[in-house]
Amino acid sequence: MQLSSLKLNPKSDARIRAGHMWIYSNEIDTKVTPLKGFEPGEQVEVFAADGKSMGVAIVSPQALICARMISRSSNVYLNRKFLKYRIESALQLREQHYADQSYRLCFGDSDGLPGLVVDRFSETLVVQISNPAMELVKDDIVSVLDELIAPATIVLKNDGKMRAVEGLPVYVEVVKGELNEGFARFTENGVLFDAPVLQGQKTGWFYDHRDSRNHLKRYVEGKRVLDVFSYIGGWGVQAAAFGADQVVCLDSSAFALECVSRNAHLNQVEGRMATMQADAFEGLKTLAQDKEKFDVVVLDPPALIARRKDIKVGERAYQKLNQLALRLVETNGVLVTASCSMHLERNRLVNILQASARQVDRTVQLLEQGHQALDHPIHPAIAETEYIKCLFARSLKSW
Amino acid sequence: MQLSSLKLNPKSDARIRAGHMWIYSNEIDTKVTPLKGFEPGEQVEVFAADGKSMGVAIVSPQALICARMISRSSNVYLNRKFLKYRIESALQLREQHYADQSYRLCFGDSDGLPGLVVDRFSETLVVQISNPAMELVKDDIVSVLDELIAPATIVLKNDGKMRAVEGLPVYVEVVKGELNEGFARFTENGVLFDAPVLQGQKTGWFYDHRDSRNHLKRYVEGKRVLDVFSYIGGWGVQAAAFGADQVVCLDSSAFALECVSRNAHLNQVEGRMATMQADAFEGLKTLAQDKEKFDVVVLDPPALIARRKDIKVGERAYQKLNQLALRLVETNGVLVTASCSMHLERNRLVNILQASARQVDRTVQLLEQGHQALDHPIHPAIAETEYIKCLFARSLKSW
Repeated sequence: MQLSSLKLNPKSDARIRAGHMWIYSNEIDTKVTPLKGFEPGEQVEVFAADGKSMGVAIVSPQALICARMISRSSNVYLNRKFLKYRIESALQLREQHYADQSYRLCFGDSDGLPGLVVDRFSETLVVQISNPAMELVKDDIVSVLDELIAPATIVLKNDGKMRAVEGLPVYVEVVKGELNEGFARFTENGVLFDAPVLQGQKTGWFYDHRDSRNHLKRYVEGKRVLDVFSYIGGWGVQAAAFGADQVVCLDSSAFALECVSRNAHLNQVEGRMATMQADAFEGLKTLAQDKEKFDVVVLDPPALIARRKDIKVGERAYQKLNQLALRLVETNGVLVTASCSMHLERNRLVNILQASARQVDRTVQLLEQGHQALDHPIHPAIAETEYIKCLFARSLKSW
Repeated sequence: MQLSSLKLNPKSDARIRAGHMWIYSNEIDTKVTPLKGFEPGEQVEVFAADGKSMGVAIVSPQALICARMISRSSNVYLNRKFLKYRIESALQLREQHYADQSYRLCFGDSDGLPGLVVDRFSETLVVQISNPAMELVKDDIVSVLDELIAPATIVLKNDGKMRAVEGLPVYVEVVKGELNEGFARFTENGVLFDAPVLQGQKTGWFYDHRDSRNHLKRYVEGKRVLDVFSYIGGWGVQAAAFGADQVVCLDSSAFALECVSRNAHLNQVEGRMATMQADAFEGLKTLAQDKEKFDVVVLDPPALIARRKDIKVGERAYQKLNQLALRLVETNGVLVTASCSMHLERNRLVNILQASARQVDRTVQLLEQGHQALDHPIHPAIAETEYIKCLFARSLKSW
């Protein structure tokens, strides 16, 4: 296979040599290899300014990240064989660690599969493709997944925000089997769920906190728990299943709360669960006015910092939420505070927790720190692959 | 109780208001309240430059950290009542999470007990005091511990390095009961150990990695494991007890390796364990020359960066070790790489892991990140209370 060349500017090879896999459009020697000369999704051999081969990349000529390395070798190509090898490697890791056959099977760059996300819900696979090269081989992706796993159902949920940036059409297609009412049944940490694949967010579920949610077992038995931004009950239903006496799920979406009830029913814990439909800020204020207290409060908001320039405003929102949540925590109770904003650094979330504690005159002890679950491995050369933070903090009377 | 005043310089109150508990000698208005005017261990009321009371602190007039806050209130004093309240709070946390009655019971500043560390080994308590104020109330400490726990044995292991800085004498004293041959028996993660309280390092044991060691269960069944800097077998003996086929413990200390054998025998896993006495760098090189491979390599060195100025040299040592260790890891195997150096930042250890992987031409995936166990809580206002990093990385053939 003869590939076109993509030539880097001087010094633009250093990050790639260190193991990063992204190439930005301003790193290309566009005089020699203009980006408009490539087809979307084309495979190219990348060369440093000194002429040394860096390996093979896939090109998105219109995007800021205009190319992504797939190999350091110059004779590895994105094809069925490649997909089978990398997906098999990803599968081997998940099978070793999650007996429930439910996990994020492929996590993009971290699994050497840039632009490909696959969530497995037992017998259902939900695929998300976000760049043109993967779109070109989507039939191979489906065929490999079918060969390796033979699931009942495969869904292409190709409606992510990145697709427009990449000039890709938005569509959702059930390419094998069918979805029961749009839901996929699975278990996480031994607890049953129905993920709303068609109507829900992203693939319908967020496995990224699964390992932290498993740690709820240490905290919730016989306790009263509040799950803020509950979505469909990931934390809340598990808290109830792990033995909490009473769980309140707070979310602004009526559909999400209907799913909470559905998932509570699946685990026969609906008698110990309640839902509250409200904006989180308003809901937390109402609970404080009503003098409600909880032994454990989980605060797992959506990304409040979408872009780097939103950091200041976003940090203020995190601080306000943490302060409101801490007010509701009993003495010796626990706040589980999370962030999925890549732009919020872990130590900043610790600072926000501490500032919130001072504002409500509490002393807090940081007991545990969760990261994204191991079905979302981090590529240590690509800081952007790490985004989940989760702090378990004990709230004491102020020293 | 009428306390002397300690007056801060202008602006030196900001860190304390934010929740930190340490006061440095250059933050004192020594014209008004000279440090030589205080007795070692004296309790004082701290005032900001504007005259506002900040609370009560204990003074170490000779030390760089010349005072440590014990309360924001001006009528809380370090006495038996104080010790009972704070130790009871610390005990409540540990009892909730560790059924084996073996844990770090008191972790200094993080438990509001500056200068006091207590490790519980089931029926044995080992106490370490590192400042003069705690030394003055040591009889109350022993009496409170006896009241709350009634252990068979209490040891004052007052031989830490900080004692000389604080002008305190060095001594080890068994103040209640007796130690069997100098050892204390306990369990961690369900595995039996004898900690060499008298001859070993610090209290004889390091509970700080206990939660990460528990995660070994996910990795070692039926595997071949290498434990580098094994000390008395914390990781290695647990790996064997969790089902590893073969475990090699590498340490430079003959005494530590005798303890490994003793602990292996306690768990009847000695048939699957071997020891290797060597300097870690040399031992890793020898194993590579002998073409040895392991499914899991644990690299948990002592602090290689003691002071801030040692960061560069220390980071090179970490990198060399990680590189040597990665060479021994099988494809799809796991490197568990740790650091207890407060001065090594977590993201630097990730960088070191990645650089090591490039040097030996591997691709690594970061699967899990461990922090210090929850019997070593972090005070979120005191960054110095966080020091443990532990990365679980999967090693793949280079992409």
